[in-house]
Amino acid sequence: DSDVTVKTQPSDTSLDAFEFVRVLNQRSQTKWIAIEAKSGDQKAVVLLEKMAFNESNARQILEDNSSASSLRLDFQNDIYSNYMAFPRSDLNAIKTTIIHPASDRHIQKYLHQEIRVVLETPRLYAEVTYPHIQRQQLSLQWVHNILDHKSETERIVCDIEDPDIGFVLLPDMKWDGIQIETLYLVAICRTQGVRSLRDLNETHLPLLNHIKTTSCDAIERKYGVTRDQLRIYIHYQPSYYHFHIHFTSLAFEDPGTVERIHLLDAVINNITLCNDYYQKSSLLFPLKQNDPLFKAFTDKSLEN
Amino acid sequence: DSDVTVKTQPSDTSLDAFEFVRVLNQRSQTKWIAIEAKSGDQKAVVLLEKMAFNESNARQILEDNSSASSLRLDFQNDIYSNYMAFPRSDLNAIKTTIIHPASDRHIQKYLHQEIRVVLETPRLYAEVTYPHIQRQQLSLQWVHNILDHKSETERIVCDIEDPDIGFVLLPDMKWDGIQIETLYLVAICRTQGVRSLRDLNETHLPLLNHIKTTSCDAIERKYGVTRDQLRIYIHYQPSYYHFHIHFTSLAFEDPGTVERIHLLDAVINNITLCNDYYQKSSLLFPLKQNDPLFKAFTDKSLEN
Repeated sequence: DSDVTVKTQPSDTSLDAFEFVRVLNQRSQTKWIAIEAKSGDQKAVVLLEKMAFNESNARQILEDNSSASSLRLDFQNDIYSNYMAFPRSDLNAIKTTIIHPASDRHIQKYLHQEIRVVLETPRLYAEVTYPHIQRQQLSLQWVHNILDHKSETERIVCDIEDPDIGFVLLPDMKWDGIQIETLYLVAICRTQGVRSLRDLNETHLPLLNHIKTTSCDAIERKYGVTRDQLRIYIHYQPSYYHFHIHFTSLAFEDPGTVERIHLLDAVINNITLCNDYYQKSSLLFPLKQNDPLFKAFTDKSLEN
Repeated sequence: DSDVTVKTQPSDTSLDAFEFVRVLNQRSQTKWIAIEAKSGDQKAVVLLEKMAFNESNARQILEDNSSASSLRLDFQNDIYSNYMAFPRSDLNAIKTTIIHPASDRHIQKYLHQEIRVVLETPRLYAEVTYPHIQRQQLSLQWVHNILDHKSETERIVCDIEDPDIGFVLLPDMKWDGIQIETLYLVAICRTQGVRSLRDLNETHLPLLNHIKTTSCDAIERKYGVTRDQLRIYIHYQPSYYHFHIHFTSLAFEDPGTVERIHLLDAVINNITLCNDYYQKSSLLFPLKQNDPLFKAFTDKSLEN
């Protein structure tokens, strides 16, 4: 959906042009909601997310002396009191994304998916996950384009050619490259044989230590963020099966990924203690219920 | 601060009774901000948090046909368009907590603390963390009150007397005991000798497996939540040094704790692979910069 071009300038849209159909999904912690709506006979997806505060609008909310600044008391206990505030609309924006006309695939993409955790034993890896990865065969051409300097070359922060311990470090697509609070870079290794954590053993310790030290130096030089302010980790399952390591600021929280996060320091520790830790271990990871891999695991458990 | 009683009924307070002084802290992902303010010569802390959406207010926001429902266009790309919406105030509440009069300790508590990660080798545990725990000696009387049925007995969900593999399972203070999306229980073990992960070895595998199986059965029976919908983990560093295991719903995200979370399945896996894993391993954990333990680590690193 990403490489589309601007076509029509929308008429002056207002939210009441859309009729509410149902809630597709919601996250109360980040104050976000996905709604299926319709306009005439066309479907639409409306995403609403409350805006974060900043100093200036917090100050204005406090200093607004219009009637809107009166508070509704919830409860009061000595010096502590809880209220509901209803400040002026212009001080309380909601980020609104509208996909219109929306296809069923858009609706499906935003529909709430139950998440389940799965405990993958070495045997389940060999009999379920590995065959699944082979069948999937998602194209990794875009990774090789980066490694071969065919695309995104101008975004590269650090580039080591060595075929064994070499890698490319560049900002992740999710990061604007500026705001330190959401700093996010990815180191993609040059060695070809490592699909995921499962392929790591003691022969990769030089690669892991090299990526860690060199990337931390490069990030400190370019962004002034020191190693102890970084979350350095590997996802399992990864979103693509070419070994890569995530570098984010500690403040950046990617909801719904706690089980997927394996801290690089823990991975280095585990392999140092036990060379074939990642071939012998049972690894827990989350799966959406409509993920084909989840179905493969459920079918397997029915067999046993 | 918790056991105070209602004294005065507040006059009809409005936010503009408070003068903005500075932002103490803010979390853009959860749309929360802590402000130092003053009213006359008294200090105050004002906490603002945008309210989560629910179906009814999302529906009203869409169907509100007052002028407030017009949108300000940010950008539009084919079927995707981003706007800012400014719905009617009454549809867009802000949860407001006011601490007034506030002490400097309140201000300090809400002041932003930089977080750093620390890699604790076995030697640093012996020379820095362990002496620090001994010096701290925080009272654990409240834990023994629960284990000895002197308090919170009515809240207990599961209670196994056995001195070695016994434990008490009860809702965490942060959970209302009802909303499944934020389900949170804690299993506190009866055995006395285990302060944290560092004290675990193969002799504790029966305890760990027993707590896991029995608690998961109890949670499924009482709340209908199955094992694969739960996040079961141990914090390191723990908030109190009497061994306990957290059980939360997968949807419950405790911001700022990724590095502290050790999944129980991973802990069982590690000890099964290597009996003295938690005595030999280097463990990473986050610390606030004003935490005395952080100072102890910094002093140590200056010595080396």
